[in-house]
Amino acid sequence: MASSLISRQFALSLQKNLHLSAPGCRYVSKAAPKTQLEFDYDGPSMKTSVPGPRSEELRKQLGHIQNVGAINFFCNYEESRGNYLVDVDGNRMLDIYTQISSIPIGYNHPDLLKLLSDPSNLSTLVNRPALGILPPENFPEKLTESLVSVAPSGMTRVQTMACGSCSNENAYKAMFIWYRNKERGHNTPSEEDLSSCIINQSPGCPELSILSFMGGFHGRTMGCLATTHSKAIHKLDVPSFDWPIAPFPRLQYPLEEFTRENAQEEARCLEEVEDLIVKWRQKGKPVAGVVIEPIQAEGGDNHASSDFFRGLRDIARKHGCAFHVDEVQTGGGTTGKMWAHEHWGMEDPADIVSFSKKLLTGGFYHKDEFQADEPYRIFNTWMGDPSKNLVLSEVLNVIRRENLLEEVNRSGKALMTGLVELQAQYPGMLSRARGVGTFCAIDICDDGTRNRILITARDKGILLGGCGDRSIRFRPALVFKEYHVHLFLNIFNDVLAQLK
Amino acid sequence: MASSLISRQFALSLQKNLHLSAPGCRYVSKAAPKTQLEFDYDGPSMKTSVPGPRSEELRKQLGHIQNVGAINFFCNYEESRGNYLVDVDGNRMLDIYTQISSIPIGYNHPDLLKLLSDPSNLSTLVNRPALGILPPENFPEKLTESLVSVAPSGMTRVQTMACGSCSNENAYKAMFIWYRNKERGHNTPSEEDLSSCIINQSPGCPELSILSFMGGFHGRTMGCLATTHSKAIHKLDVPSFDWPIAPFPRLQYPLEEFTRENAQEEARCLEEVEDLIVKWRQKGKPVAGVVIEPIQAEGGDNHASSDFFRGLRDIARKHGCAFHVDEVQTGGGTTGKMWAHEHWGMEDPADIVSFSKKLLTGGFYHKDEFQADEPYRIFNTWMGDPSKNLVLSEVLNVIRRENLLEEVNRSGKALMTGLVELQAQYPGMLSRARGVGTFCAIDICDDGTRNRILITARDKGILLGGCGDRSIRFRPALVFKEYHVHLFLNIFNDVLAQLK
Repeated sequence: MASSLISRQFALSLQKNLHLSAPGCRYVSKAAPKTQLEFDYDGPSMKTSVPGPRSEELRKQLGHIQNVGAINFFCNYEESRGNYLVDVDGNRMLDIYTQISSIPIGYNHPDLLKLLSDPSNLSTLVNRPALGILPPENFPEKLTESLVSVAPSGMTRVQTMACGSCSNENAYKAMFIWYRNKERGHNTPSEEDLSSCIINQSPGCPELSILSFMGGFHGRTMGCLATTHSKAIHKLDVPSFDWPIAPFPRLQYPLEEFTRENAQEEARCLEEVEDLIVKWRQKGKPVAGVVIEPIQAEGGDNHASSDFFRGLRDIARKHGCAFHVDEVQTGGGTTGKMWAHEHWGMEDPADIVSFSKKLLTGGFYHKDEFQADEPYRIFNTWMGDPSKNLVLSEVLNVIRRENLLEEVNRSGKALMTGLVELQAQYPGMLSRARGVGTFCAIDICDDGTRNRILITARDKGILLGGCGDRSIRFRPALVFKEYHVHLFLNIFNDVLAQLK
Repeated sequence: MASSLISRQFALSLQKNLHLSAPGCRYVSKAAPKTQLEFDYDGPSMKTSVPGPRSEELRKQLGHIQNVGAINFFCNYEESRGNYLVDVDGNRMLDIYTQISSIPIGYNHPDLLKLLSDPSNLSTLVNRPALGILPPENFPEKLTESLVSVAPSGMTRVQTMACGSCSNENAYKAMFIWYRNKERGHNTPSEEDLSSCIINQSPGCPELSILSFMGGFHGRTMGCLATTHSKAIHKLDVPSFDWPIAPFPRLQYPLEEFTRENAQEEARCLEEVEDLIVKWRQKGKPVAGVVIEPIQAEGGDNHASSDFFRGLRDIARKHGCAFHVDEVQTGGGTTGKMWAHEHWGMEDPADIVSFSKKLLTGGFYHKDEFQADEPYRIFNTWMGDPSKNLVLSEVLNVIRRENLLEEVNRSGKALMTGLVELQAQYPGMLSRARGVGTFCAIDICDDGTRNRILITARDKGILLGGCGDRSIRFRPALVFKEYHVHLFLNIFNDVLAQLK
């Protein structure tokens, strides 16, 4: 069924480029030798529909304890390997969603198993310190080996936090503190600052704002939530701040056909940003910082050009606003560079870069001037978790040793080529194939069809995630090779043919 | 030096009750046989002043990466055991602060080392799931064994989160959602709700509030911070919400001498709470929930009577506000009960109870009606960490097996007796000895003396923490036995004598 539905041109191109074993039939690339991924399985294997009976049983059990409305199925993490997630009913799925993009080098990577079996690391797992006051001896070394070793351009300082939301909340606080000290001209708060802040009033708790973008997602705690505008369900019923929200460019695809329109659209958005900054300053709620994702992920994988981000950075600088790049979902190598904003090719791209997910710990990098002047201003009990830094350090070793960023670029190219081809094949169903590295997405004609595709693909052993109103996002691990791309494309083609 | 400074009566009473080995001299209780704590050391041992040269060196290194202003010293967690924290200069300190009260059963507990050496637990450490969508097979079981097994009265539902702040943020969200659905009379948001919330405006983002107490501490993210009023440095320069802040009773000690005054003070505070609820409703910012700590910790270990909390709970119910008890610092057994609010002796003490620290994972218990009606409303990528539930499960086993709550009550009694005696001995220096279980505190005449006591005690091998303006708080692990209490009292007495 599948073979007949792949365009001849596509099959031929794949055959030519990828030394297909069975041209014209289900194609499986041999380009990436399997030995590189000895801890991987060699394909999906489905025993039941998903969720299967054991998952349903566990879901009922868990339903007595918490809301299970979002649960897809229960997993057997012991049996999961590499790119494959195994569920409790014995189904083995090629995982292209990886726990909402948070598994960097696949399941049960042998180097991580080895690391965590090493008795000399036991103490790090058992004794969780209050990092801000009593760090372990190897903390500076582990930070240097891990986060500092991949610090974005211009940044040598990093603060870890427990999760993505906490990272952004604290990054916002760092920007507010920086901005107020700048306004004061010195770091010494007045008596009025100190007495008013304790009761939530200005000037101690000033009327400052963070400018964010429609469609953006920066987390779900109340500060972050005031900058999140991807779906109503995230925000409904939660009090918020009167902060400015700018439009994010809505590009038309294919990009090469809409160069002029897209440039106009980006210029319009930048103009609006500048207007909002002026307007909020006039309102007495100056913009202390601008926060943006290099690719809006939750909001539907919305991209903008490097020119747009350069322009935005300039506007922020011009108006004295900090520029915060939220790399919680884009960071960690999935775009083919460690940080997506490195694609902009700027020497001074950001003041603050936050991360979480694939970095295993939350946190944010910042320029020197964004370090709070006093201790205990950016602080909490745990301030991260050194056991996560330990694992991250080894993950980064694996990424370097196995040249995984190169692999991501190779796989990403194959994935985009395949998506573009499928889009040509199913023009009424697919559109706007887009991506950087393996951080790809494609739009489906409507959300009902999108959801049917996700479920049908899952039943065929492919785990994908949605985003925005009607997009499918691809978020594989960094060990997702060309081999896996073709495996995926083949099955995806089956799914599309079936639902056409 | 020490012996002569302990009152005769105190020494005699200790001798009588505790079979002292050396009456009239440094007293060491034999009541708690050391075999119960075979993984403990037998006393502090100091090699250098603290921080020592190696700590200073590491501090310099870390200073290139982050703010080190709050760092006390660097630790050798491998060598730390039970109640003793060992630093990188070989100093061994009796730890009565335990990483800001977050180490439940001491350092390197053998049962935890065993648990985390077990290869069958490796996968839980290596593969961190997105718990809200793809939980591991044993998740319902581990939750049941751990958090559900110690659920507060009236609560069977629990949501884990990564840290204390995220726990409170999400608890507030649960209260807002509950309140708005109650206002609507149903769970279906209007079109206006949905379209307005996405741009931070009412009615979708309603003008609701949380009532908190002066001196309270509930975390440092922006929602939590709007309910935190312990120290200005936590809040300075961060925008906040116009939410009501009630006075927390300021009790006079000794309690038995001020029964009438304290009852009046508590009545005054309750009256103010009710006034604020009415006032904020009139302002159009109704109070969706009331949040309070059973003992204000950061704010200075401020206690109130069970009657106060009963009255408060009644007021919240009368006005249709949710009642949220924040047990982040008080929970986990340190007051001699698993939850401090259990001391109030109520059948229906709370709607929401949040936790973190000694529970190793953040989260909150809630009544059925506080479960969000839809998935993805209380949600994030990780939603906690099953590796922490695994460890917590074993911690609770140890607590039960070793009857640690009984031990806490016994040690707490000895600690309070000792503090009261020392207070009588040093009336110009010490006052307001107070506590429940080992969750004790004492006030020092001024903050300068308080800080000198903390430093001098540390140099003698006792690690303590401050809180409020001039209090010392005691936050030992649950394995802090009478033996350790007397060891501490003896050295503390030396310190006080030296600084008198």
